Amino acid sequence: MNEAFMKRALDIAKKGSGYVNPNPMVGAVIVKDNKIIGEGYHEKFGGNHAEVNALKMAGDEAKGAELYVTLEPCSHYGKTPPCALAVVKAGIKKVIIAMEDPNPLVSSRGIKILRDKGIDVVIGIMKEEAEKLNEVFIKYIRTKKPFVVMKTACTLDGKICTVSGENRWISGEASRRYVHYLRSKYMGIMVGVDTAILDNPLLTTRVDNKKLRSPTAIIVDSKLRVPFKLKIFDTLSERKIILATTELAEDDKVSKFKDMGVTIIKTPNKNGRVDLNYLMNELGDRGVDSILLEGGSKLNFSCLKEKITDKVNYFVAPIIVGGEKSKGTVGGDGIDHLSDAIKIFDVHSEKIGQDILITGYVNRR
Amino acid sequence: MNEAFMKRALDIAKKGSGYVNPNPMVGAVIVKDNKIIGEGYHEKFGGNHAEVNALKMAGDEAKGAELYVTLEPCSHYGKTPPCALAVVKAGIKKVIIAMEDPNPLVSSRGIKILRDKGIDVVIGIMKEEAEKLNEVFIKYIRTKKPFVVMKTACTLDGKICTVSGENRWISGEASRRYVHYLRSKYMGIMVGVDTAILDNPLLTTRVDNKKLRSPTAIIVDSKLRVPFKLKIFDTLSERKIILATTELAEDDKVSKFKDMGVTIIKTPNKNGRVDLNYLMNELGDRGVDSILLEGGSKLNFSCLKEKITDKVNYFVAPIIVGGEKSKGTVGGDGIDHLSDAIKIFDVHSEKIGQDILITGYVNRR
Repeated sequence: MNEAFMKRALDIAKKGSGYVNPNPMVGAVIVKDNKIIGEGYHEKFGGNHAEVNALKMAGDEAKGAELYVTLEPCSHYGKTPPCALAVVKAGIKKVIIAMEDPNPLVSSRGIKILRDKGIDVVIGIMKEEAEKLNEVFIKYIRTKKPFVVMKTACTLDGKICTVSGENRWISGEASRRYVHYLRSKYMGIMVGVDTAILDNPLLTTRVDNKKLRSPTAIIVDSKLRVPFKLKIFDTLSERKIILATTELAEDDKVSKFKDMGVTIIKTPNKNGRVDLNYLMNELGDRGVDSILLEGGSKLNFSCLKEKITDKVNYFVAPIIVGGEKSKGTVGGDGIDHLSDAIKIFDVHSEKIGQDILITGYVNRR
Repeated sequence: MNEAFMKRALDIAKKGSGYVNPNPMVGAVIVKDNKIIGEGYHEKFGGNHAEVNALKMAGDEAKGAELYVTLEPCSHYGKTPPCALAVVKAGIKKVIIAMEDPNPLVSSRGIKILRDKGIDVVIGIMKEEAEKLNEVFIKYIRTKKPFVVMKTACTLDGKICTVSGENRWISGEASRRYVHYLRSKYMGIMVGVDTAILDNPLLTTRVDNKKLRSPTAIIVDSKLRVPFKLKIFDTLSERKIILATTELAEDDKVSKFKDMGVTIIKTPNKNGRVDLNYLMNELGDRGVDSILLEGGSKLNFSCLKEKITDKVNYFVAPIIVGGEKSKGTVGGDGIDHLSDAIKIFDVHSEKIGQDILITGYVNRR
């Protein structure tokens, strides 16, 4: 057994990023005499699973070989037949698995099939890396709610705009390019109505001047204040747009938006606001496994307070603008006591161009 | 010539940190046959220079040896005789210097003495490291104004307190220990009157429960609102306290503070505020070569706006508190346009316990 082969499997799994949702990214490597004789990954939603692609490449050589796979082979008939059976059929003699299937309904069933057929199974090699790779899938399969990543670009002193409201551009080019990569990776992108009106953003995905699949846009707007003429509605032909609102929305406006092709989700009225937990359940039911939350500061706070945020991505630019009245990344009423502060764990910082990207996970305990 | 010897000289120079101000930290290593035969550093203000200590250790062996020194040997009779002459006298045959003396009045004179006596001189080995080591000295010797380091502890969302004003403790234990080390390194510590009143801090230096030399405390208080009963005035026997004020201060209160042993610096009244540039000149004249600025947000903004801040130290804790009304690290009126934002360069981030310390230099261009 050799960790390097699992690392290879994890690396090729990543190629599926943005194409397999809400499926997991999976990579598989088949090894014989310490040489790779087959490899594959889950390339797109509905397509072959990783193991099948790897077995295809290995062909008859797979007999007696070892299979490294980042996720437990599936045991069910879905869009494709069970991989565990394909592995058995190919004559693989040993299977090395990074992590078990996080779906409690099917977890360990694939492993059982393999073991019952006398295949040697090793579990947990590079488990942490595999779990990180599929953090979206793990959350979604277990809760049926989207994995929410708050992304914000701020100055070193934590401001998302100057006192006069200027915010273009706070972060550098490299960061902005990275954000478009994030947009291609997650299924949804969510903003508050103030951001939608003030910034009038397209929320599309452009990488190297090429347009990629744009995420489903979700605008949180309890009173449906959003005007019909925003630029984003010009993108309706190429992507889904969802307005999340409440009973406070005018019926006329709701109908008109529906006629335009906009999806309306009405949630209960929670003190004049959209019920975010209800919204997450609705979005999850519609297959949205992940959301990039791009603020403003009020919505950022509400999402943290309602405990729907899973991860934060802070792009910190090396500038200072100050101002008691300029907006910070997280606004709203705020938290009164430090003992109640929202804890961020597994914090990591790296340079992205001139900026610093700080990432971390929101602690729900 | 071997960079490792210069690195050693730089390492031992650091031992003088906090003891030599307003002198530079200097280290010297004497090498013969690729072996260190003498080394020394400038240990305390008024004490021997590094070269002299190294020559003492080398003794007669110094004849024909090489000297690595982090700063150009001095050429003047000060508290000690010129080091350049001592080097000549000892028979050193080659001198490797990291950086020239930054004092424009004496720069390169020491080098000239050495070269005139036929000694081989190499300049600029690990110059960047040497300049960083003596960033305080370089600023002070060239401008006679203190090097100002803004230190702040904030949440990931850039807040220095919750909406209710709680700020103890935002940063973790390791960061707080590091701040005490910073206090021991810089000659002065400066706060605004609001911080002095609200936090009522001691601003002393405790490292591993041992009390170290506490920096000169400077409270910026244009109207002299500070009450007599603050805890900090109990530390007058062990350190200097300076109140920086203006004509707006009551004469009675000024006299009473003077009687207590507090130093009063009256600056011109700049729109109801202390004239910070005037204050820096005054402090420089009194031998304060460096100041750790510990906020609050109003004073932090004023110092940046008045261009007296040289460096920033952000201790970012992995928590989020939010709040439109909770204070950020830099307040005041703020800057209107992003094109006028204060640029921070040479940004560096590292983990200090659970926190991230982000450091950078303020761009004055």
